[in-house]
Formats: sequence, C-alpha cells, structure tokens
Amino acid sequence: MTLAGKIVGLVALILTIACSGAGDSSRSAAASDPLSSWNDGDTKTQILDFVERVTDPASADFVPESERIATFDNDGTLWSEKPAYFQLLFAMDRLRELAPEHPEWRDEQPFKGVLEGDLEAVAATGVPGLLQLVMATHAGMTTVEFEQVVTDWVATARHPSLDVPYTDLVFQPMLELMAYLAAKDFTVFIVSGGGIEFMRPWVESVYGIPPERVIGSSIKVVFEIRDGEPVLVRLPEIDFIDDKAEKPVAIHKFIGRRPIAAFGNSDGDLQMLQWATAGPGARLGVIVHHTDAEREWAYDRESNVGRLDEALEEAGEKGWTVVDMKRDWKIVYGYRSD
Amino acid sequence: MTLAGKIVGLVALILTIACSGAGDSSRSAAASDPLSSWNDGDTKTQILDFVERVTDPASADFVPESERIATFDNDGTLWSEKPAYFQLLFAMDRLRELAPEHPEWRDEQPFKGVLEGDLEAVAATGVPGLLQLVMATHAGMTTVEFEQVVTDWVATARHPSLDVPYTDLVFQPMLELMAYLAAKDFTVFIVSGGGIEFMRPWVESVYGIPPERVIGSSIKVVFEIRDGEPVLVRLPEIDFIDDKAEKPVAIHKFIGRRPIAAFGNSDGDLQMLQWATAGPGARLGVIVHHTDAEREWAYDRESNVGRLDEALEEAGEKGWTVVDMKRDWKIVYGYRSD
Repeated sequence: MTLAGKIVGLVALILTIACSGAGDSSRSAAASDPLSSWNDGDTKTQILDFVERVTDPASADFVPESERIATFDNDGTLWSEKPAYFQLLFAMDRLRELAPEHPEWRDEQPFKGVLEGDLEAVAATGVPGLLQLVMATHAGMTTVEFEQVVTDWVATARHPSLDVPYTDLVFQPMLELMAYLAAKDFTVFIVSGGGIEFMRPWVESVYGIPPERVIGSSIKVVFEIRDGEPVLVRLPEIDFIDDKAEKPVAIHKFIGRRPIAAFGNSDGDLQMLQWATAGPGARLGVIVHHTDAEREWAYDRESNVGRLDEALEEAGEKGWTVVDMKRDWKIVYGYRSD
Repeated sequence: MTLAGKIVGLVALILTIACSGAGDSSRSAAASDPLSSWNDGDTKTQILDFVERVTDPASADFVPESERIATFDNDGTLWSEKPAYFQLLFAMDRLRELAPEHPEWRDEQPFKGVLEGDLEAVAATGVPGLLQLVMATHAGMTTVEFEQVVTDWVATARHPSLDVPYTDLVFQPMLELMAYLAAKDFTVFIVSGGGIEFMRPWVESVYGIPPERVIGSSIKVVFEIRDGEPVLVRLPEIDFIDDKAEKPVAIHKFIGRRPIAAFGNSDGDLQMLQWATAGPGARLGVIVHHTDAEREWAYDRESNVGRLDEALEEAGEKGWTVVDMKRDWKIVYGYRSD
C-alpha cells in the first residue's frame, strides 16, 4: 500500500470513529440485539420484521420518519398493575396522609374503607367511589404543588408485596422495545387511562418519554392570578377519561396522526389497536398477555384490573401480535435477573 | 511542518467538513444572520440575547434542551388575520359550496349573510352566529374527510384583496425565528385560538411544525365502527376554545411543561404570556404589534379581530418585547420583496 493509500485508510477509520457519535448513539447497541430481554420466537420476529419493513427505504412498506408514530398503553403494558393500578395505591397513600385534616372521612365510604384497610368496602363503592378518592387526593392544589406530591411519592413509596419502588416494576423488555423504536426514528407516545399529571413527573427519567408525549385522563384545571402570580389550580371535576373508545379520540386530539403501531394489554386498548391497525400500509398491533404467575401475575378474562377478553378475541381475527409474557420474556423487571 | 503535522492538519480539516453534516445543518446559515429579515435594533437584539443566554452552557441562565419550550400564537402572529381570521373565510367558502344542499340557509342568519356577501349581517349574529357557521361547515364528516377538505381549500383558495394563496401570508421574519429556535434545540409549539384540525393539514409544510405540536380549539369527535372500519366522526359540538385563560390550560394539558418563551399578538395571548414569563429563570415574552398599514395592516386597541389593548399595557410593565412590524421587519411576506 502506498503512503497515500495508508493516509486515505487512516482518514476513513478516523472519520468512522469520530462521526459515529454525531448520529444516533444507540445504533451500535441496537445492531447486536435490540431486544435482548426477549426470547427468540414468533413474537420477537414479528416485531423486528415490522420495524425493518417500515424503516427500510427499499421496502414496499417503507414509512417516512414523520409518520412513524407508536402509542403505548401504560398500566399493564409498560409496568405492572397489581394488586391495583399504582395510581390508586398513590391515592390511598395520599388519603391517609391527608386524613388528619378530614375527620369526616372516618365515617364515610370510600374514605373509611381506605383508612381501615378494608379494600372490599372501597371496591363496593364502584367507579363513583373511586372518582371521589381521586378528587379528594388529586384536586384542590396548583399543578406545581401536585407535581411535587407525585415526585415525592414516586421517590419514596414501595410496592405492598414486592417492597421495591414502583418504578422498578417497569417491564425491561418494553423499555428495550421503546428504545429500539426511538433509535429507528419512531416518535413514541404513551396513551394511558391513568392520570396525565400522575405520569408526567417521572416518565422522562423512567421511560425516556418527554411530558409532551404523554396522554392520559385528566381533571379540569383553571388559570388564576394569586398574589400577582399566575397559577393553574386543579379542580375536583373530570375533564377526560382516556380509555376504550376515547383513546383514538385522544390520539387524534393530541397527536393528529394515526399511529402505525400500538401496544396495549387490556380491553381498554381495543379501540386504540383497531384505529392504529386499520390505517393503510403496514401496521403493528401488539397485546401484552399476562401469563406469568410466578414472575409477575397471570390474568385476562376474569380480571377486574386489566381485563383482557374482547381484545384477545380480536387479536386472533386481526392477526395482532400477542406477547406471552412467560414464554416471550427472558426477564420481566430490570432490577431482578428472572 | 512535518509530514505527520500535515496529516494531522488534513485529518482535522476533513473531520470538520465531513462531520458538519451529521449534526445540525442549519448551523452555518444561522451563524451568518439567523434573523436576516429583521432590522437591527433593540427587538432583534433582545431576542438574540435571550436565545444566547439560555443556550450557552457557561451562562447563568442556561436551560437544558428538554426545557426549551417555545409557544407561538398563529393568527396575527405567524400569518395575517385580515380582513378576518382566515378560518372564517374558509368557513364562508365552504358554506357557499354546501349551500345547494341547504335551501333553508337562504332565509336564515348567519347563513343568509354569507351567501349574500352581507358581512355586517353575519357579524351582527355575534359569537353564537359564528359558532353556527363553524358547526355547519366543520362537522358532520369523518376526520379523514375534513382533512381533505382543508387540504383542498389551502391549495386553491386565494386571499380576497391580495389574491395570493393564504399560506403566502405567513410572516417571513417569524418563519426565520422559529427555524432559529429549532436550530438552537427549542421545541416549538403553536398554541392558537384557531381550529386544531384546520391547522394540522398544512403547518408541517408551511411552518416546519409537526401536527403533534399544534394546539388549538376543537369540536368533539366520536369513535365509531362503520362497515367494519373504525372512523372518527366530527360532531357539531364545541370541545375546547383555546383562547385567553384557556391557553395556559391547554399548554399544561398538551405539553405538560411551562414554556420559557411565548409569542403572541393580541389580548387573547395575554395569559399565555403571563404564564410563560412568570416561571423561574430567564424568560422571553414577545408581542407582534401590527403597525404597518402599507405592507400589512395597522391595528391594536380598536380592532375586533386581533384586539391588542391589555396585553400591550402589560408588555410595558413586564418588560416583554414588542415587535413594531413597520420598524423591525425588513420584509413581511416571503413572496414579496418589501
């Protein structure tokens, strides 16, 4: 090789090294196995194949970056939801904290049930009772104050049976999947029945999703000037419940484009999956099926929380990908090796 | 210089050239004059200084990229709004198109006024009349159908006096400003009183803002399965009016973070400016003042459309930047050289 040839080779090598950091730093990791917590099999193959097809410019199914929208449910899809939605456990913790200022709660359901640990009595109050719990614990303060309450809870609260922070209970395979999609220039949104302001304070550090890409249920807020300072005050009034047929409505309102991929785990995600997968071109619908009673929980048709019945039926008809947690996931949580 | 020294120099040069494209391609253009359509002066200096301060890691006012949220009003801030909001002109065009199917409109205000070109009669019906116009022209179809209607109108309709497409009437200096902020790793949102679905079909190509970063007023939509296909149907019912005190509410709902910079032109933007500029750290509030009757329109306190009174007063007290269109802008529209 001539000296000039060597120089050219050297320059090429330096360019490769020096420029690699300027683009997408996750590429090299992704190139090995972007879904290393997933067992090999049909599920993993279907997901990888879809992403390859829509991101390969030579493919008939190629989708430009700006249209690569993916939506993920949160409870039961990105983290666990047992023994109850974690937001409900938050509301109950919060209620106990506020109880000294509210002696009337000692005699009134659903508050009494929470304070006495009688969850059957709480459950018996149904949706109206749960809404009362949410209003009593989520409203009556400014948005800045509520954000601090959530941040403090997430930093200190522990799951009742597993005794770890709730944010340890996010599914490692799903974190990998979201990172993989982001590396492939998807824009990833969370579309959850959970409270939008309950999620936003921690989703960026835990999921890598910024607050503006979190959609959820909300209570009303009102703008006020207090002592010359503008504040947003949370009212004890429902604004929007982001569940079932409202999920496509919220997707339309917040995103304004139809996702090409949607990920859920319950009947509450059925319409989101229908909407995403009915669009033209290649589409991916994925349902996380909780089949692992040992490492997580096993439930579907009979469950109150995260009931999966109609959507599982339709997954078969429509060819959606069903993740069998027990079979498809090498590990469940990042904090544990199983 | 030794051969090794020359090689090192050569490599450095090649690296500079080769890697420059891997990052932000607008940097070199921005380095010359990112706001070349702005006249030199206090206004331009205030904007440039703010951006420098919040993006310079050595500055006490430095703001990390994820917190660099900027919100822009649309009508009167990013494009013109005379003789009426362009969306109202769209509604009137659409009404004339639909009139053959609605003989009853010939005798009923505000429809009669539109069909006869009697705008005073239309105006006399007030807000309820305008809402009737919007409902009659914006509802009763699927979201996909409405998007097509808007797309067709934007491609073919022309401004009544200037006889150019409406999208020619966007302000070149504001386009430069949004591009400059994007190049400085701001996330730019539109927060408009206008209809969210009236803007989304064209804002990406005209402003470079993707649909998910457009916030506006909306009517209700409902999810339905029609002939086995999921659709979202637009209902003749107001969902949200994104104006005045509702703008901070919408910012909170859609973005979930407080902007560090906000841009408006009317009293409808007052609360957005209050909310953005009241946060901690460096803040920028900007009001576009329409002072140029020759090149655009001149109006403020007495105007029905884009009335600017209280917000102009408060700009003085709060130290917000007021753009004097006549003084500060070298050109107004990109399609014209003045």
